[in-house]
Amino acid sequence: MNHKIAVIPGDGIGPEIVAEAQKVLDAAGKKYGFEMEYTKVLLGGASIDVHGKPITDEAIETARSSEAVLMGSIGGDAATSPWYKLEPSLRPEAGLLAIRKALNLFANLRPAYLYEELKAACPLRDDIIGSGFDMMIMRELTGGLYFGERKTVVEDGVRKAVDTLTYDEKEIRRIAVRAFDIARKRRHLVTSVDKANVLDSSRLWRAVVEEVAKDYPDVALNHMLVDNCAMQLVKDPGQFDVILTENMFGDILSDEASMVTGSIGMLSSASLNETKFGLYEPSHGSAPDIAGKGIANPIATILSAAMMLRYSLDLDEAADAVENAVKKVLGEGYRTTDIMSEGCTQVGTQKMGDLIAQYI
Amino acid sequence: MNHKIAVIPGDGIGPEIVAEAQKVLDAAGKKYGFEMEYTKVLLGGASIDVHGKPITDEAIETARSSEAVLMGSIGGDAATSPWYKLEPSLRPEAGLLAIRKALNLFANLRPAYLYEELKAACPLRDDIIGSGFDMMIMRELTGGLYFGERKTVVEDGVRKAVDTLTYDEKEIRRIAVRAFDIARKRRHLVTSVDKANVLDSSRLWRAVVEEVAKDYPDVALNHMLVDNCAMQLVKDPGQFDVILTENMFGDILSDEASMVTGSIGMLSSASLNETKFGLYEPSHGSAPDIAGKGIANPIATILSAAMMLRYSLDLDEAADAVENAVKKVLGEGYRTTDIMSEGCTQVGTQKMGDLIAQYI
Ligand SMILES: CC(C)[C@H](C(=O)O)[C@@H](O)C(=O)O
Ligand SMILES: CC(C)[C@H](C(=O)O)[C@@H](O)C(=O)O
Repeated sequence: MNHKIAVIPGDGIGPEIVAEAQKVLDAAGKKYGFEMEYTKVLLGGASIDVHGKPITDEAIETARSSEAVLMGSIGGDAATSPWYKLEPSLRPEAGLLAIRKALNLFANLRPAYLYEELKAACPLRDDIIGSGFDMMIMRELTGGLYFGERKTVVEDGVRKAVDTLTYDEKEIRRIAVRAFDIARKRRHLVTSVDKANVLDSSRLWRAVVEEVAKDYPDVALNHMLVDNCAMQLVKDPGQFDVILTENMFGDILSDEASMVTGSIGMLSSASLNETKFGLYEPSHGSAPDIAGKGIANPIATILSAAMMLRYSLDLDEAADAVENAVKKVLGEGYRTTDIMSEGCTQVGTQKMGDLIAQYI
Repeated sequence: MNHKIAVIPGDGIGPEIVAEAQKVLDAAGKKYGFEMEYTKVLLGGASIDVHGKPITDEAIETARSSEAVLMGSIGGDAATSPWYKLEPSLRPEAGLLAIRKALNLFANLRPAYLYEELKAACPLRDDIIGSGFDMMIMRELTGGLYFGERKTVVEDGVRKAVDTLTYDEKEIRRIAVRAFDIARKRRHLVTSVDKANVLDSSRLWRAVVEEVAKDYPDVALNHMLVDNCAMQLVKDPGQFDVILTENMFGDILSDEASMVTGSIGMLSSASLNETKFGLYEPSHGSAPDIAGKGIANPIATILSAAMMLRYSLDLDEAADAVENAVKKVLGEGYRTTDIMSEGCTQVGTQKMGDLIAQYI
């Protein structure tokens, strides 16, 4: 069977790591009897260079008419890249925000867990790590401050800027339902994070999440204030199963959580809409400083491809095979430079992709 | 000389820890020739219990007519306390927000540093800690989402909530000036944190901070996105000197930073307006679970009192004496239970206050 996949190589290390994910997908296809039909789509800096803007209508349509999108990473070094001389709406990141909104990718799943093999890279002490941790951050991705009305005005000679944080109950309900569904397949605990002691949107968030929770008597729910959650991620990450939160809080907390694992080069993500469609990308950025050197870690992108197999294409067996191949390669001591440690074998981007493909 | 100080014992452990701070202030007064005239002010749950609301006009006026406010901590356990059955504007925290706004306390200073003696409590590994860290978080405290217009409405049968994030250039400039002034007395580095790739308010923030920076050629400025900052605090806290940020980001990041130190029971804070006036309180909360047990750590409040001596009363010598007394007591191995470790002497709240007062 053929699957139509839109591929966004993106910027920085994006093209290198996406190529390895495609290699692994092709190996899985050979084994499990499917074939990928890739269509390349430009987004971010790569699109600016060709089209003068970070995304085009055609790019969105190509993505929309695919079964899923596999993405590298976008953006460059803000201090030095000419892309960042453009006005904000023309910069690489604007393309990412635009595709999220256009394709209604409201549910961002970002797993953050400790790899037993990479424990040494975790910035936390062993007694904090305890028996490890494994959480799934469910971030609302198409609402809140990211997509509210905004303006900058001059009033009586004083510049003033306004952003708006808006949520309606439908937006909250659909992401909450996803979070509870996922918690059911995990450890049956949802921690909903908000700032209900200050924000109206958080109070509505809390109320709607509680309504949804009634349909999931088998899943425990607790509420946590965002400032406390930022502390708890450092103090006791093992307490979390599914973290459910709005867009901006999710941006901050998911990055904190990924750093707490110590191996951000290993963390995948999925952004889903109401259907099976999704956009899959590593949690990390485009690392322009090491672009083109052949040393980037492709594993986060390869694991994102595994998520794609699972969530968008219903190819669970193939997804398992990819994840197991990654484990095997790690178990045998192969490491890219970002996760290298004593006694291991250091390999480059392509070699890492080859090894994982080979173990499928 | 007499100084008029408003004292807010507050809730939970508040009254216990504030009493120790007063004890230490009195000891310093005896030595350095000043006397404190304390006026008790109710705020938070304590005010709800007496007046049915978390703050009264009289409370604000008493605070306003003092030279400074010394505060314990406010609030209770949201799950069990009857205060949290009230509508949001009548809950304990609303009192704190109201006094910040009424007294124009726009500059929140929250130091976060690693105590050499308490290194073992730090959740980070030794190689991450490196040679230690010492940062000052400058959080804007009277603007942004905290004080923007908000509403919850029903539109076509759908509940919808809106919060507004507003900053004008004056609000940004005055906190930025404070941050640069403080950086000058420290390690001459300001890291301004925003989300300029998404928010208009952040882009204005960045522009104004850059304008202010021109007057401080001796202070280095860099900009960091909030999600990245949440990572960097865990990855390499030693890189920061002064962190300058808006209200909500500051709430999240300062709590994360305080947890990264591993000894939140030791961290003070000051909230200042344009004059010398300020409100001083520990960074930690009211810990209702240990209230009344005589085991709470009073050091954060005692160090907040030292900040008060320094910033509001120009009693630098006395402030130094308090800080040195704290160091001495720690150096001699006295610890409250939250910071207890092997080989140390465990003491209660009062004994800790006695010891520090004695070493003045
Ligand atoms: C690039 C940026 C706009 C984006 C975000 O803030 O959502 C990124 O940080 C992310 O988390 O995917
Ligand atoms: C109690 C709450 C409203 C407050 C805040 O969010 O500012 C607290 O978290 C703080 O940081 O002082």
